[in-house]
Amino acid sequence: MKNFTFSNPTKILFGTDAEKHAGDEVKIYASKVLLCYGSGSVVASGLLDRVRSSLREQGIESVELSGIQPNPRLSLVKQGIAVCREKGIDFILAVGGGSVIDTAKAIAVGVPYSGDVWDFYEYTATPTEALGVGVVLTIPAAGSESSNSTVISNMDLQLKRGLTTELVRPRFALMNPVLTFTLPPYQTACGAADIMAHIMERYFTNVRSVDFTDQLCEAGLRVIINNIPRVLANPEDYDARAEIMWTGAVAHNNLFDTGREGDWASHGIEHEISAIYDVAHGAGLAVVFPAWMRHVWRHDVARFAQFATRVWGVEMDYFNPERTALEGINRLEAFFQSIGLPVRLSQMNVPSDRIDEMASKATVKGGGAIGNFVKLDSDAIAAILNSAI
Amino acid sequence: MKNFTFSNPTKILFGTDAEKHAGDEVKIYASKVLLCYGSGSVVASGLLDRVRSSLREQGIESVELSGIQPNPRLSLVKQGIAVCREKGIDFILAVGGGSVIDTAKAIAVGVPYSGDVWDFYEYTATPTEALGVGVVLTIPAAGSESSNSTVISNMDLQLKRGLTTELVRPRFALMNPVLTFTLPPYQTACGAADIMAHIMERYFTNVRSVDFTDQLCEAGLRVIINNIPRVLANPEDYDARAEIMWTGAVAHNNLFDTGREGDWASHGIEHEISAIYDVAHGAGLAVVFPAWMRHVWRHDVARFAQFATRVWGVEMDYFNPERTALEGINRLEAFFQSIGLPVRLSQMNVPSDRIDEMASKATVKGGGAIGNFVKLDSDAIAAILNSAI
Repeated sequence: MKNFTFSNPTKILFGTDAEKHAGDEVKIYASKVLLCYGSGSVVASGLLDRVRSSLREQGIESVELSGIQPNPRLSLVKQGIAVCREKGIDFILAVGGGSVIDTAKAIAVGVPYSGDVWDFYEYTATPTEALGVGVVLTIPAAGSESSNSTVISNMDLQLKRGLTTELVRPRFALMNPVLTFTLPPYQTACGAADIMAHIMERYFTNVRSVDFTDQLCEAGLRVIINNIPRVLANPEDYDARAEIMWTGAVAHNNLFDTGREGDWASHGIEHEISAIYDVAHGAGLAVVFPAWMRHVWRHDVARFAQFATRVWGVEMDYFNPERTALEGINRLEAFFQSIGLPVRLSQMNVPSDRIDEMASKATVKGGGAIGNFVKLDSDAIAAILNSAI
Repeated sequence: MKNFTFSNPTKILFGTDAEKHAGDEVKIYASKVLLCYGSGSVVASGLLDRVRSSLREQGIESVELSGIQPNPRLSLVKQGIAVCREKGIDFILAVGGGSVIDTAKAIAVGVPYSGDVWDFYEYTATPTEALGVGVVLTIPAAGSESSNSTVISNMDLQLKRGLTTELVRPRFALMNPVLTFTLPPYQTACGAADIMAHIMERYFTNVRSVDFTDQLCEAGLRVIINNIPRVLANPEDYDARAEIMWTGAVAHNNLFDTGREGDWASHGIEHEISAIYDVAHGAGLAVVFPAWMRHVWRHDVARFAQFATRVWGVEMDYFNPERTALEGINRLEAFFQSIGLPVRLSQMNVPSDRIDEMASKATVKGGGAIGNFVKLDSDAIAAILNSAI
C-alpha cells in the first residue's frame, strides 16, 4: 500500500427532499449566489423553482447562468466568471449533473484569477484560491458532487481537459434519488458506465497489497451492475436509484484509491473522442474500456482474473486464469451492450479517420504517454481505438 | 434506504513517518497544545520524542497529560480540562489508541463548558463548542481517530458512557502502520474484534435495500478476517498492518452506516461489563457478539445467511437457510477463538453474580430497552449474558 492523504469534507445531504436544504446550506457561506444549470429537465420538472424558493426563503439573492451543455464549454465558464465579478458573487450553486458542476468549479477557480482560466486546464498555472461551490445533483455519473476535479471542453481547440485541486471540492451536495426518476434510459446507462469507469480506473493498479480498496471497488461495481437493470425496468425504483446515486459519489471521492495509483488512460482517450465528436462521456467510456482491457490484460492476469471472479461471478479456471481474465472483459462488454450502450466507435457515429490525431493529442499532456497500469504511447492508443472501430 | 447526512472531514495522513507531520498539522490550528498519551510503549518506542520534536520544530508549546488507561477515566478528563483552562490551551493532540483519543475528545468538550463534563455523557446537557483535536494513532481498534464519538468511564459510578457529536471529530489523524508492529498479539486481536464489532453493529439493521453499504461492511469484515492471521504470524507485515489500520478508521467514520440504522446493543452490553470488571473492550465484544447473535438471529434469517455466505464463505443451504445463518455465527466465534480472544465471560474472569445488575444498568439510558435490530429489555440482556457464562 502506498502512503496517502485523504479527506472528504463535502457534506452530503441524501434522501427525499434533499434539495429543499439549498437555502440553509448556501446561507452558511453567502448571501448572494450564482445559480448554474443546464436547460430542459431542471426547469420542466419544477426543481429549479423549488431551489429558487429555498434560496428566497433564506433571503439569498441569486443570479442565474443557464444553458450549460454536456461536455461543458469554456465559453460559458468565461461568461460565468464575468458575471460573478460584475455582481460581486462569491458562492456558486450548481443544479444538475457533472457538466453543470464542473462548470461551476471552473468559474470558482477562474473568478479570483487574473489570467485565462484555461491556463489551469493546460497546467501552465495552478489555482491558489476559489469561490465556494454547492451542488443539487440530478444525474449520478460524474461523481463531481464530492470530487476534487473538473473537466472542461475548449471547443476552439477541440480539447477536453481536467483539473484536480482540493479548492474545487464542493462544500455540500444535496442528493435526492427521486430527481433521477426522469432520467432517460440512455442517460442512466451512460451514468452507470461513468461510475464504473471511475472505479475501474482506480482498480487497475500496479500497487500490491491493496486488499481493502480492491474490495471496496468490487463492491461498488457489483452494486451498479445489480441496480442498473432494476432502474431500467422500473425508473421509479427509489432504492435502486438511491444505491446508484450514493455509489456514484463514493466512487469518485477518492476513498477507493487511497493507497493505490489509478490508471486513467481510458478517461484520457475518451476525452479526445468527446472533444471532437461531442459524444456522451459514459458512452465513450463504454467503447474505450473493453478495448483498453483487451490491450493490457496480459500485464496482470491475476488482477483481471480477480476482477472477473469477484465482480462478475465468473468461475475461476485455476488451470487457465487467462480464460477467466478474458471472460471478465467479455462480461463487462456484454453488460454495457445489455443496458443499451455502444461498444464500438461506429455505434456512436465516430469515424476512424481521425484516430491518429486523437491518439497523438491524448499523449500531449503526459509527455508522450498516458496511463499508469500500462504506459500507452500514441501508437498503443491508436491500436486500442482501431480495435474498437 | 433511509435519508442521511454524511460528512467526514478528518484529514488522514497515512503511511510511513506520518507522525512527523504532527507539528505541521497542529500549527494550522494552534501554537500551544495539550499532548495526551498513556504510558509505556509510546514513551519506550521513541514515538513520543519524535512527536515532541515535530512540535518543537514548528515552535509549538506543549503541556503534557500522561497516564491515560484503557477504559479511560473521567478523573483524568477533569484533570486535563483544568490544565487546558489554566494554561490557555485550545488544541489537543492525542498520541495513542481509542482511550487516549476519547480522553482528548472529552477534554475538548469539557473546557468551554461551565458544568460537569459528565453531564454530556449522561445526556443531561449537549455540547455546543469544543477545542480542536488531532491524533497520532498507535492502535487500530476504536476508530476514534476519525469518528464523532467518545466513550468515558466514571469509576465512582461504575458507568461507561458514550457521547456522539460532530464537535469531537478530529481535525487530522496521522496513521503510520509501522507504529502498530509492536502491538502484542492479544491487543491486536482485541482491536480486530472492536473493528469487526463496529461494522457488525451497523450491518445488522432492519432497514431494507442497503445494498451498497451491506457490501462495504462485508468488504471491511473480510479484510480484517484475512489480515489478522497475517499480522499474528508476522507482526511486522506492513501491508497487512496497513489494511487493518485503514479499515479500522473507515469502519467507524459513519460511511458504512449511511442510509441504515445500526443496532449497538452489543456495545451497550459490553460497556456494562467493562465498567465493572475493567476488561479490554475488544475482548468483551468477542464474548458478547456471538451470544447476542444467537439470541436474535431468528429475527432476520436472510440477513444472517447473507452474513454467513458473503463474509465467511459459508456455502448457502437454500433448503435450510437457518443452518447457513447459524454456521456464520459459529464461524465468527471460531475466528475470535483462533486469534486468542475469549468467547465466554469466565475466560475473562467475569463472574456471573452481577449479570442482573449489568442488564439493568444497560437499559437505563434507552428507557428500558436497547438495540434497534431487536429491542432488548433487561431480561433479554441477562439471558444473553447468562448464555455466555
